[in-house]
Amino acid sequence: MPVGLSEPVNLLPVEGIRLAAGACGIKKNGASDIVLIDICEGASSAGVFTQNAFCAAPVSIARAHLSAHMPRAMLINSGNANAGTGRAGLAAAMRSCQSAAQALQCSPQRVLPFSTGVIGEPLQVENIERVLPALVTELDSGNWLAAAEAIMTTDTVAKAVSRQLVIDGKTVTITGMAKGSGMIRPDMATMLAYVATDAQVTADALQQCLQQCVAHSFNAITVDGDTSTNDACMLIATARSGIMVDSGHETFMQALQQVFTDLAQAIVRDGEGASKFVTIEVRSADTTEEARRVAYTIAHSPLVKTALFASDPNWGRILAAVGRAGIDGLDIDAVRLWLDEVCIVEHGGRAESYTEALGQQVMDRSEITIRVELGRGQCSATVWTTDLSHDYVTINSEYRS
Amino acid sequence: MPVGLSEPVNLLPVEGIRLAAGACGIKKNGASDIVLIDICEGASSAGVFTQNAFCAAPVSIARAHLSAHMPRAMLINSGNANAGTGRAGLAAAMRSCQSAAQALQCSPQRVLPFSTGVIGEPLQVENIERVLPALVTELDSGNWLAAAEAIMTTDTVAKAVSRQLVIDGKTVTITGMAKGSGMIRPDMATMLAYVATDAQVTADALQQCLQQCVAHSFNAITVDGDTSTNDACMLIATARSGIMVDSGHETFMQALQQVFTDLAQAIVRDGEGASKFVTIEVRSADTTEEARRVAYTIAHSPLVKTALFASDPNWGRILAAVGRAGIDGLDIDAVRLWLDEVCIVEHGGRAESYTEALGQQVMDRSEITIRVELGRGQCSATVWTTDLSHDYVTINSEYRS
Repeated sequence: MPVGLSEPVNLLPVEGIRLAAGACGIKKNGASDIVLIDICEGASSAGVFTQNAFCAAPVSIARAHLSAHMPRAMLINSGNANAGTGRAGLAAAMRSCQSAAQALQCSPQRVLPFSTGVIGEPLQVENIERVLPALVTELDSGNWLAAAEAIMTTDTVAKAVSRQLVIDGKTVTITGMAKGSGMIRPDMATMLAYVATDAQVTADALQQCLQQCVAHSFNAITVDGDTSTNDACMLIATARSGIMVDSGHETFMQALQQVFTDLAQAIVRDGEGASKFVTIEVRSADTTEEARRVAYTIAHSPLVKTALFASDPNWGRILAAVGRAGIDGLDIDAVRLWLDEVCIVEHGGRAESYTEALGQQVMDRSEITIRVELGRGQCSATVWTTDLSHDYVTINSEYRS
Repeated sequence: MPVGLSEPVNLLPVEGIRLAAGACGIKKNGASDIVLIDICEGASSAGVFTQNAFCAAPVSIARAHLSAHMPRAMLINSGNANAGTGRAGLAAAMRSCQSAAQALQCSPQRVLPFSTGVIGEPLQVENIERVLPALVTELDSGNWLAAAEAIMTTDTVAKAVSRQLVIDGKTVTITGMAKGSGMIRPDMATMLAYVATDAQVTADALQQCLQQCVAHSFNAITVDGDTSTNDACMLIATARSGIMVDSGHETFMQALQQVFTDLAQAIVRDGEGASKFVTIEVRSADTTEEARRVAYTIAHSPLVKTALFASDPNWGRILAAVGRAGIDGLDIDAVRLWLDEVCIVEHGGRAESYTEALGQQVMDRSEITIRVELGRGQCSATVWTTDLSHDYVTINSEYRS
């Protein structure tokens, strides 16, 4: 059961973007597993991709195609990651681009391939090829929800959101979708996310916008600390609203950041086996890097995560995680720790005002903030994560069967 | 159920070491929870302690006492870690030293205190004080097993081992005990381990022997990646055999290393919820540090650990872990991966000879070696770990209740 997350509603079309979703048989249960996104001429696209050295075949190809041409289409399959598939995997991904290009009458280099699902199985390109002609005829700007559903794997709910803002009297629309539930510790990008706007943004400015938004969204979440081989996050600006913006445009960036943050948080809320949505704020650190290290050490601690699952205010485990984060010269007397509004640790031990009942009250909530004050400097970082439940173990010990 | 580990047998006394164990009521179920170790005059002692910044009160005091005096006694309680207890915790640990010193008629600085158990609860020193006189009268060189049982917390089986070797026609004995099952990723020392020998070793040489043995035993294991606040590992040389050795003595060091490795592996075999004992060997790395980083990334991956629990040869997850270990310039075509004798990955993808049936055959075993060849250099590292099971979640979400 996702935490505080329901089916997307009121998704808005983005002029210049048409989508089609279908089932091509890669998912054995017959669920939808293929998406084609058609991008109008004149649009800009930007992308960030996984830093995993074993990046999947489609990631290699999408990265290369994006660096050389403005994309005309994105082709996404779920159910098979086409990762760890060697040269055959590269050939399969390339062949899927060629087939999509043929159907859309563009060059194969203008198609970006994406895959998500099981690692190490050969991709059945022929399944994709069989449905491509039908997908092309079904392209429609109203298909965001169907697309968001077709890219799901262990996700239990589709993730998509829209925002509108008015600039110079004209309405600008931003709509995005994402998928991901396990193997989530994005490093420059998350599993798969696609955000489109009808604003006009140059390619360079769009890349800046994307990186800025990703830093405080997909790069600030973790479910299990496992960076996927297939992470990719794409941002498309179709220019159709006629409104030109860049990363310095405050209201546009606020709206864009909100879409990214909503999608990133949706991935955590639907994290495998999640029963809690946990915000970890680390403040008064010497450097942002240091704050992030402490936040991720807490977020990845199996002992903290199982205590969260048990709604057990076992703050000693949080303290132990802070202590092993490798912060040179940490003064434990200066460290303070809160669960929501309750101060639990100060002066190297339990806060005088703390009682087990107060801690229990917070832990019984499904959304909790763990705040750590390091008492060293001015930097901070926020990370969102989940607990570690029996369902996580069940999902990941049964995923392939 | 521990993996390939049964009750210790044939534990040998070490001349010069006497132990007593009892129940003082810190453990609510009335199980034994207190150990006193008496060390003869003329012995040397060496210790390594947790690197966790939030080290427990007894660790601070044991470290200080050890640096200034040759220990006469070690006082260990289980059930309460006396960690995260601030100044009151330091006072409690100090008071326990004073009481033991009084009972043994030595100075308090010659007593080293150790605690293991729940973090953040006040230590009931008066319970310890009440049983100290009885413990002193019960000191006996034959009490290693009772002591090993009394230091257990979530351990399901006591961990202790003896070795003997003959040097210059005389028999040298080594006996050790350890405890630990969760919060296990020792950093310079593990939860608690005590090894004694009747060899004669100078204090400096003993510290060298200890560090050398720890590097390839307690510092090469992980259950959940959580470094404890209370880790400590002590080595005592009573000199009573009259045989003088140092870290350059090959046969002595081999026997000593074997005792350390057996104890460290016992902790993993009894790791919380463990159903598999997993050896991770990383070879042909550029540096030992790099080899260790890859090994620990695999060992800590929840996805790899749940696949091991499921006996699922989901090698893509191992590959993804290698890929995210942060090795600069990793050539994925050069990486090879084995499950025991079965090669599963080469040339960036599944090995041609690999079949799911072969992988399944290995995964069905309870002891498995994952071998990674990075194809970069001459360095290697070995780490021992467990799978991640439902029982791990159960144990750690119910530990305090």
